[in-house]
Amino acid sequence: MLTRRTDLAVEAAALTKMEQETPVPEGVRLSEEKREGCPVTRVEILDGRGEAALGKPAGTYVTVDLSGLVKREENAFSRSCRALAGELRHLLHLAGVEEKAPALVVGLGNRAITPDAVGPGAADHTLVTRHLIHQAPEHFGSFRPVAALAAGVLGTTGVESGELAQAVAGKVRPGCVIAVDALASRSLDRICSTVQLSDTGIVPGSGVGNHRFALNQETLGVPVIAVGVPTVVDGATLALDILEEAGRDDLDPAALRGVGGSLMVTPRDIDQRVKDMAKVIGFAIDLALQPHLTVEDVELFLS
Amino acid sequence: MLTRRTDLAVEAAALTKMEQETPVPEGVRLSEEKREGCPVTRVEILDGRGEAALGKPAGTYVTVDLSGLVKREENAFSRSCRALAGELRHLLHLAGVEEKAPALVVGLGNRAITPDAVGPGAADHTLVTRHLIHQAPEHFGSFRPVAALAAGVLGTTGVESGELAQAVAGKVRPGCVIAVDALASRSLDRICSTVQLSDTGIVPGSGVGNHRFALNQETLGVPVIAVGVPTVVDGATLALDILEEAGRDDLDPAALRGVGGSLMVTPRDIDQRVKDMAKVIGFAIDLALQPHLTVEDVELFLS
Amino acid sequence: MLTRRTDLAVEAAALTKMEQETPVPEGVRLSEEKREGCPVTRVEILDGRGEAALGKPAGTYVTVDLSGLVKREENAFSRSCRALAGELRHLLHLAGVEEKAPALVVGLGNRAITPDAVGPGAADHTLVTRHLIHQAPEHFGSFRPVAALAAGVLGTTGVESGELAQAVAGKVRPGCVIAVDALASRSLDRICSTVQLSDTGIVPGSGVGNHRFALNQETLGVPVIAVGVPTVVDGATLALDILEEAGRDDLDPAALRGVGGSLMVTPRDIDQRVKDMAKVIGFAIDLALQPHLTVEDVELFLS
Amino acid sequence: MLTRRTDLAVEAAALTKMEQETPVPEGVRLSEEKREGCPVTRVEILDGRGEAALGKPAGTYVTVDLSGLVKREENAFSRSCRALAGELRHLLHLAGVEEKAPALVVGLGNRAITPDAVGPGAADHTLVTRHLIHQAPEHFGSFRPVAALAAGVLGTTGVESGELAQAVAGKVRPGCVIAVDALASRSLDRICSTVQLSDTGIVPGSGVGNHRFALNQETLGVPVIAVGVPTVVDGATLALDILEEAGRDDLDPAALRGVGGSLMVTPRDIDQRVKDMAKVIGFAIDLALQPHLTVEDVELFLS
Repeated sequence: MLTRRTDLAVEAAALTKMEQETPVPEGVRLSEEKREGCPVTRVEILDGRGEAALGKPAGTYVTVDLSGLVKREENAFSRSCRALAGELRHLLHLAGVEEKAPALVVGLGNRAITPDAVGPGAADHTLVTRHLIHQAPEHFGSFRPVAALAAGVLGTTGVESGELAQAVAGKVRPGCVIAVDALASRSLDRICSTVQLSDTGIVPGSGVGNHRFALNQETLGVPVIAVGVPTVVDGATLALDILEEAGRDDLDPAALRGVGGSLMVTPRDIDQRVKDMAKVIGFAIDLALQPHLTVEDVELFLS
Repeated sequence: MLTRRTDLAVEAAALTKMEQETPVPEGVRLSEEKREGCPVTRVEILDGRGEAALGKPAGTYVTVDLSGLVKREENAFSRSCRALAGELRHLLHLAGVEEKAPALVVGLGNRAITPDAVGPGAADHTLVTRHLIHQAPEHFGSFRPVAALAAGVLGTTGVESGELAQAVAGKVRPGCVIAVDALASRSLDRICSTVQLSDTGIVPGSGVGNHRFALNQETLGVPVIAVGVPTVVDGATLALDILEEAGRDDLDPAALRGVGGSLMVTPRDIDQRVKDMAKVIGFAIDLALQPHLTVEDVELFLS
Repeated sequence: MLTRRTDLAVEAAALTKMEQETPVPEGVRLSEEKREGCPVTRVEILDGRGEAALGKPAGTYVTVDLSGLVKREENAFSRSCRALAGELRHLLHLAGVEEKAPALVVGLGNRAITPDAVGPGAADHTLVTRHLIHQAPEHFGSFRPVAALAAGVLGTTGVESGELAQAVAGKVRPGCVIAVDALASRSLDRICSTVQLSDTGIVPGSGVGNHRFALNQETLGVPVIAVGVPTVVDGATLALDILEEAGRDDLDPAALRGVGGSLMVTPRDIDQRVKDMAKVIGFAIDLALQPHLTVEDVELFLS
Repeated sequence: MLTRRTDLAVEAAALTKMEQETPVPEGVRLSEEKREGCPVTRVEILDGRGEAALGKPAGTYVTVDLSGLVKREENAFSRSCRALAGELRHLLHLAGVEEKAPALVVGLGNRAITPDAVGPGAADHTLVTRHLIHQAPEHFGSFRPVAALAAGVLGTTGVESGELAQAVAGKVRPGCVIAVDALASRSLDRICSTVQLSDTGIVPGSGVGNHRFALNQETLGVPVIAVGVPTVVDGATLALDILEEAGRDDLDPAALRGVGGSLMVTPRDIDQRVKDMAKVIGFAIDLALQPHLTVEDVELFLS
């Protein structure tokens, strides 16, 4: 049977509510606020009841709405970077990561597939400092050591991204890992206009590339913050939603076989949007990890 | 009201047949054959009745099915190039273009948008000889003069592709123009596995980029062969097809508002497929224009 | 005989001075100043005597030293953009170009050859407005109409860049043309750290790509401002300079045959430097043509 | 004092011969032959005397002259691939690597610097099979497992290429490593037309990127075959050679200070040549590791 696929906790929560017409399930806490003008939704899955209800592991999932960026609102880029950076710092703090602990940024996904390229793109915008601290301590002595890795894909390397990240983490010995990935969403509106941060790491089967490994505290030995951007809706999910919108929830989804798995639905300007999101996320990571820097500083360092 | 959009004559014909359950309309001729193992469908729109029935200008529309390429069948690349080249030569001949008449190849579309990049990509694989004939007559004296233009897009140049093509044609004074463009299709199966050749040129409102100009004998003064590759299905078309497949042709399409125009549906491996099609088309143009060359020769010249 | 090659008037002037140990030649005027902290040198070739002395056509040649950018000095990017923009506006004014006259920006050179890619890169950073003025007059009604063209290269298009620029100018009917090109320099120090502006247009035989056409008032019918960036020193020039530096100006240059023409000497970080210069020049053109904009505005429009 | 820099054993040998006017030094063996029409030179450094004479560690250095490729001779691409593949297989055999032992291909260097991009480019053309053997044993069961890594650069990742290769080798546990790198040469003629294979691995201080680590049997625990392509001549080396060619070997190299280290000399068509060499080397590795494949097979698998 075809099912709706989403990697976003905020959608899993909404799905539940909509279908069962009940309030927030037991074991789940929802809250909303604004940061730098960007709407922020926090979904906390507190226990097994919440896990069962939303189909995701216990943890905190923060969704930051960056639609102001898509609409090119004033200062949207700087505000988006700072909003994301603030939430990211908060999650790192909750996870017990120390202020100057070395960080490893892992960009998951495939550069050669547009909607899967957001992870490698974010890694390109990461301010890498691990080597500079030793090479130029007079300038970079006060920086947090940061390493970055664009993990490539299985077909290109023959090595699972998870194995690779584990291998590099074994060398770099970071105090935390930040893993950036492209996600599937249920809603076309959220495509490249929302970012989900979570302290649960990367779950097998998630992401546009459908990772087969877990990238989390258990496999890497340190807290893993996942940063996810929805970039596609899959064909089957769209088909089900169209039918529902048309008031035909009585339909046998089997009748739709063929519309399914190998298709993706994206906005026409997906190439530009993926580039934009990769830059915002990279900059947000830089601001979160090096809180003495401004957006302008990062722009200067990376140009 | 939402309507199904297709730039393919073969689909317009099928649509008519399917919906009206009648034979091929008056004023249209359909024929099928195989060339180099590739199925070839010819739709000839003969007069005003055919134009009205299919909603396209009178002319010959040839669809070559290259699905063997997608399936990586044996020798599929060479066979596809030769099949397309053969049909292209036939259309040039029908249009009265002389064997050695100078040609201008125009790649329409936007390199920065994956499914719109097939035109510029094909231009990159065009064997450009116009300058070599004068520079190195001892090697290239017997070649047909060919110029190529990747026409870019309005947002990048401030100049309509049509204006640009017209300006360059005014300098180059070709005997024919071959214009390559990405198309919208109705069928997901045809995406990047079918090529449509036509002697009608480019029609306003067609193509992924929705051109606003005609690129045809009237505007350019010489025969224009259009080479089109379906690379997207638009959201509204997919929605209508899903509903029909589910036996709900009674539905008000207005209920689906919002699924519409700014979305595109593509296969997950669209980046690779667009690259493949651009290469096949470029090579086919080279073989059609320089019939003394083989696929291997072109590979050597362009590497 | 091997000769030293330079496309920079400021070097031609220095060469003369150094070799003949005389003051500035008759028919040439030299002046220096600073703008936005950047050293600016103006060489005016006033008449036939000046032309003969420097081997360049009469006109004004302005060299702006952007070495602050290479050294990553504070605000170097903004200051460099404004300095160049100021000089460019001055030349446009001297040439009698009206404030709101439509402009055509032509990026000369080959994207696929790193040191020849500065022209196409600058065109990418040009704020193209020609189409927006009609499409969105409420936002862009007060902008100067600007079109842009990355002229490609003969081997890619079969059409001379000059022919192409002429064809497009014939359609766009601009009030001025700004042509950006990569140059050969004599001095390694000037590579990607200096920009030459000139009201003489592009001279045949100049540039890294060795253009064969003139792009000037005579061929295009409107004032042409050339913007050139030295990106290479050629092998023969370097060889002669090494020998001279070593006090061996008695040498037969024929002994050096083989070191010559097909080589280029560049800094190791040429890829990054060419990108930087393309951005500075593109932004400077935007500021010069749309004087109501700031660097931040352009950044926003082009991101 | 400025010294001539070369990473090629064949040049170190020639240097010695030329300067001392003696025969091949003690502890060195030289031999020449042809393979697939390509001249092959073997330099064996047998002991400490040879090491002292050539300034390189003991081992076998094989230089394959691929200038036929630059001259676009008939079948040059296939012949070059097979010639390199044959020498590579021979070195793997000498090193005691078993026929089906898993291999790790490491592409060293920086994609963003043209003459340093040959390693990552070769990794792109490597046929990666490690994952396929498990995923599709019916098709790939008989293939040798191959993993590939484009090691990036310190400034991009914060991790030394050597550390990264070591980390990945620790996961993949290959029976051999093939490391591809760009080299400095003394001779402009050898740029991108010669490949050096060696069983000594990568030596600190070698390569265009001046690696700071050894990548050899000692650090990786398995035989390491280095594949090097000269892509630059450094400025100081060229200066010394020009002076010598001009009969001025009496000169004080100190007089040339400033021409030195941060410059590189390359042919004008370096971008294309680096692409060509990356492809030849990638294909040669594929043929060497999977001897049942032909050039055409690899072309099909990688397209």
